[in-house]
Amino acid sequence: MKAAVFHGPRDIRIEKVPDPRIQDPTDAIVRITHTAICRSDLWFYRGQQEYEKGWRTGHEPMGVVEEVGSEVHRVKPGDRVLTPFAISDNTCEFCLKGLQTSCVQGDFWGQEVDGAQGEAVRAPFADGTLVRIPEKAEGDEKLLVALFPLTDVMGTGHHAAVCAGVGKGVTCVVIGDGAVGLCAVLAARRLGAERIIAIGHHEDRLEKAGVFGATDLISSREENAAAEVVEMTKGGANHVLECVGAASSMDTAIQVARPGGAIGYVGVPHGVAEKGLDIMEMFFKNLTLRGGPAPVRAYMTELMDDVLSGRLDPSPVFDMTVDLDGVPGGYAAMDKREALKVLIKVGK
Amino acid sequence: MKAAVFHGPRDIRIEKVPDPRIQDPTDAIVRITHTAICRSDLWFYRGQQEYEKGWRTGHEPMGVVEEVGSEVHRVKPGDRVLTPFAISDNTCEFCLKGLQTSCVQGDFWGQEVDGAQGEAVRAPFADGTLVRIPEKAEGDEKLLVALFPLTDVMGTGHHAAVCAGVGKGVTCVVIGDGAVGLCAVLAARRLGAERIIAIGHHEDRLEKAGVFGATDLISSREENAAAEVVEMTKGGANHVLECVGAASSMDTAIQVARPGGAIGYVGVPHGVAEKGLDIMEMFFKNLTLRGGPAPVRAYMTELMDDVLSGRLDPSPVFDMTVDLDGVPGGYAAMDKREALKVLIKVGK
Repeated sequence: MKAAVFHGPRDIRIEKVPDPRIQDPTDAIVRITHTAICRSDLWFYRGQQEYEKGWRTGHEPMGVVEEVGSEVHRVKPGDRVLTPFAISDNTCEFCLKGLQTSCVQGDFWGQEVDGAQGEAVRAPFADGTLVRIPEKAEGDEKLLVALFPLTDVMGTGHHAAVCAGVGKGVTCVVIGDGAVGLCAVLAARRLGAERIIAIGHHEDRLEKAGVFGATDLISSREENAAAEVVEMTKGGANHVLECVGAASSMDTAIQVARPGGAIGYVGVPHGVAEKGLDIMEMFFKNLTLRGGPAPVRAYMTELMDDVLSGRLDPSPVFDMTVDLDGVPGGYAAMDKREALKVLIKVGK
Repeated sequence: MKAAVFHGPRDIRIEKVPDPRIQDPTDAIVRITHTAICRSDLWFYRGQQEYEKGWRTGHEPMGVVEEVGSEVHRVKPGDRVLTPFAISDNTCEFCLKGLQTSCVQGDFWGQEVDGAQGEAVRAPFADGTLVRIPEKAEGDEKLLVALFPLTDVMGTGHHAAVCAGVGKGVTCVVIGDGAVGLCAVLAARRLGAERIIAIGHHEDRLEKAGVFGATDLISSREENAAAEVVEMTKGGANHVLECVGAASSMDTAIQVARPGGAIGYVGVPHGVAEKGLDIMEMFFKNLTLRGGPAPVRAYMTELMDDVLSGRLDPSPVFDMTVDLDGVPGGYAAMDKREALKVLIKVGK
């Protein structure tokens, strides 16, 4: 079969790789129908994160079960499934409390495990990892594309909102206008936020944030963006959703947070350890900092209900669609910021 | 009157200073009966924090109201009062939500405001700042000394426990065997923690932690103290109370926290910004970091009830008592670690 393989910075190739096969009785083989390129893939693409030549890429698989091991009971061949970016057994302490990203037997797609940017994957712990899509979605490509972001970005935006304590009637600030930031706007609106202030770099993306429900759009290119938000909110917001992971955006998050407020952060931190958080401002404002890799598996059922009923549609985060052979071009487009997020249509 | 005045590192002197007088109609004058030296006073004492020559010292005042301004209604001359280390108006948004340390008109004792290590203070916003001690405590010196730590260390230990989410039946780790760490042990026990693992430097203080309710005592002098706690708890504790504020103790807190757990931190961070938090471990474990200066004013009533009824007694944190003239010697004793916490008896 074909799959994307990392050869070096800015060198992703589509190659023939061995077909996946059942190795453990808890495995399933999933034929990929939809997958995507994530902004976090750009870290290794740009050489900013160690990644070995030969490793597979991609961590957002959706597809159809082809084969299951003898101990798989919750899915069967022919089932259409969503697959979170984290593999989880669904039986350990952390899975049972909804923190599947800390699963004791867990793993992440790509690297030494199958990458999602290919024709198929071996899905370990299929009963834990895979989530069935109801049959009513069959044949509805628009609906399938709306469901697909639940594998990562929509669940991640939701995690930011949950960690920041967003609820009915609150004012919140969303930092970042990437796909996760936009999904965080959707999540905050869905949880009842009354005022959603989006801070981003790109006018077109901020406009999308407005369509998604942001009430105020602030360009982070302005030098005093944080001060402006503090003034607009008369002292900062109680709920801040940090959706970038850069040192500068963490700084902004701390600055725009109101004393006693909470920051939910979901972007893998890059450069934050080196630069250091402004711990003194965090301390004297009695802020809460909470976040990490989103347990999207835990959020999938409630979010799927909303997508299926038409109340939630994160699909506009995709502004470019490629097939498997178009993956290298998709990376290049996201690298040059010509695309916000690339959808990869692999099969049906 | 006499008061302690800072002249330079390791140079605190008892001097004549002007008697305090009512300046604003919301002021009260409080004659000090009990005050103390706080470990955080050692930062400026040791020259590790900027402090100007001539500034008054001390931030834990307890005493008797001598005089009140025309707009003070909740206390009257003759009332015995507890005074939190933070001055607060009790009317602003933050005071009303129990975060008096962020009071918009607030301040802290010492520096340019009256210091508590003296014969009297002018207490701004007396209706907000001062908390009456019921008359039943009159004449009971033992009870008064047990109440006094509510001005700072007991409320601060309680804040660590609240921020770490301690509740009935939980396992928690308390880092630090200073007065705040010991009070955090008391607070955790009071909130129902089942297992309390105390990590500290000093055997005699750890023993005190045991008396206060710690179930396991771990010396941080052992190289693998954090690993030991992780093993004892089979993967870390869900509730960690960081009561030091040093970079090394924050590291330990992150290491001993269980995925999905919370760290409550209450020691003013020193050296943490320079060294940096291990944000990657915090992130991948989905930890919550929450803390800051304790709003002891918010906790005072419930803690006072427990002290008055005999269920709570933090007074053993004091292991040395001096009078006002003994303050310089008290600082020296704490500096040399000959005393854990010094009580200053000023008047009756």
